[in-house]
Amino acid sequence: MRGSLLYEGKAKKVYTMLGEEFQLILEYKDEATAFNGEKYKMFRGKGRLNNLISSKVFQYLHMKGIQTHFIETLSETEQMVSHTRIIPLEVVVRNVAAGSLSRRLGIEEGTILEPALVEFYYKEDKLQDPLINDEHAAYLTGLSQEDLEGIKQDARSINAHLKSFFDEADLKLIDFKLEFGKLHDGSIVLADEISPDTCRLWDKKTNRKMDKDVFREDIEDLVEIYEAILKRLEAKVHV
Amino acid sequence: MRGSLLYEGKAKKVYTMLGEEFQLILEYKDEATAFNGEKYKMFRGKGRLNNLISSKVFQYLHMKGIQTHFIETLSETEQMVSHTRIIPLEVVVRNVAAGSLSRRLGIEEGTILEPALVEFYYKEDKLQDPLINDEHAAYLTGLSQEDLEGIKQDARSINAHLKSFFDEADLKLIDFKLEFGKLHDGSIVLADEISPDTCRLWDKKTNRKMDKDVFREDIEDLVEIYEAILKRLEAKVHV
Repeated sequence: MRGSLLYEGKAKKVYTMLGEEFQLILEYKDEATAFNGEKYKMFRGKGRLNNLISSKVFQYLHMKGIQTHFIETLSETEQMVSHTRIIPLEVVVRNVAAGSLSRRLGIEEGTILEPALVEFYYKEDKLQDPLINDEHAAYLTGLSQEDLEGIKQDARSINAHLKSFFDEADLKLIDFKLEFGKLHDGSIVLADEISPDTCRLWDKKTNRKMDKDVFREDIEDLVEIYEAILKRLEAKVHV
Repeated sequence: MRGSLLYEGKAKKVYTMLGEEFQLILEYKDEATAFNGEKYKMFRGKGRLNNLISSKVFQYLHMKGIQTHFIETLSETEQMVSHTRIIPLEVVVRNVAAGSLSRRLGIEEGTILEPALVEFYYKEDKLQDPLINDEHAAYLTGLSQEDLEGIKQDARSINAHLKSFFDEADLKLIDFKLEFGKLHDGSIVLADEISPDTCRLWDKKTNRKMDKDVFREDIEDLVEIYEAILKRLEAKVHV
């Protein structure tokens, strides 16, 4: 079923599908990277966990009427998705100040952001994914201001759904990163993954960090934490 | 006439005016700083040149109907302005890619930006004036999105006027930084200065740099260049 390797990213491999022009296979890898690739470690089982968590998130969003690239989970580490051309933007939604926002703008970690802040970063490894404004985004992607506004609106709706989703599993959604892609017909849909690699999730009662920050900051074992998240989601959220 | 020193910045001192609650005196200093204060030098005569150049620019903008804080030139190094509360934004307009834009986003220096790009930076020395987007700007300044849109519109009008103004003196306006302030009645007007310290200006025929980059990059004597600009403006632009 799997065709040739199209692209290998830091966390996933992307394959064509034999005989299917408009579909791809994503394979989740066991590697974790942080700080633009400066920190690197292999975690056996991470690929499976992110695949299963992200599948569950996308199924939930699908149920809520969000258009995404997700089609189905194929195996423990693989999923089938619609072929999109990824828009080179990282769309970040922040409900609570943390990480680079706190460092760059001097907003204390833990400050509630109401309404949530939506940010665009230019997805370009060699420039270290810099923050950009809407005019830069239009210049760099060629998208219209209308399309960019649409992406921001989608990001806000997705935020509302994801807050409920993770709340069911006693997790606070601090912030997360989305990527969007263009389908062959030109329409823009949610793509990439949504997992503890791309979200900051804090335990609702203890504020314990339950996401890739445990690797960035050497707090706990990443696989145990991701396993705990999958278990909570399987027990509490039915999609 | 001069009251107490209210504030001392890198390039100007701000004094109250005796008996005038709503007016201030700006005194232009001879110091030049670059790279957030890391590079520093005294240039005898720079204060006079920036005061006279900025006065001329503000008089021209006034003639074009732009609301500003400028009232009148008081001496070689001083001007009287309306008292504003400065909004902590640096509003940058870019007609041609240069400087930090080229470095951050990989856009080659000299690339024409059409339409011009407008950027907000958060004016906060200890954070090194980071680039921000519109949502950060609203959060950090408390201004409405409508006020921020108004500031961007003003910046675009000012850009159109300044391009004509400098073109008369055979100078290309590459980019520039504006600051806005709130008058006592709450209305927002253009404030601060517009000078070769705050604009990138290239000679129209030779592309020779004629602005603070000659200091940043140790190209030529800053005072000679600023003197040349004032002479061109005095010969060519009548306000």
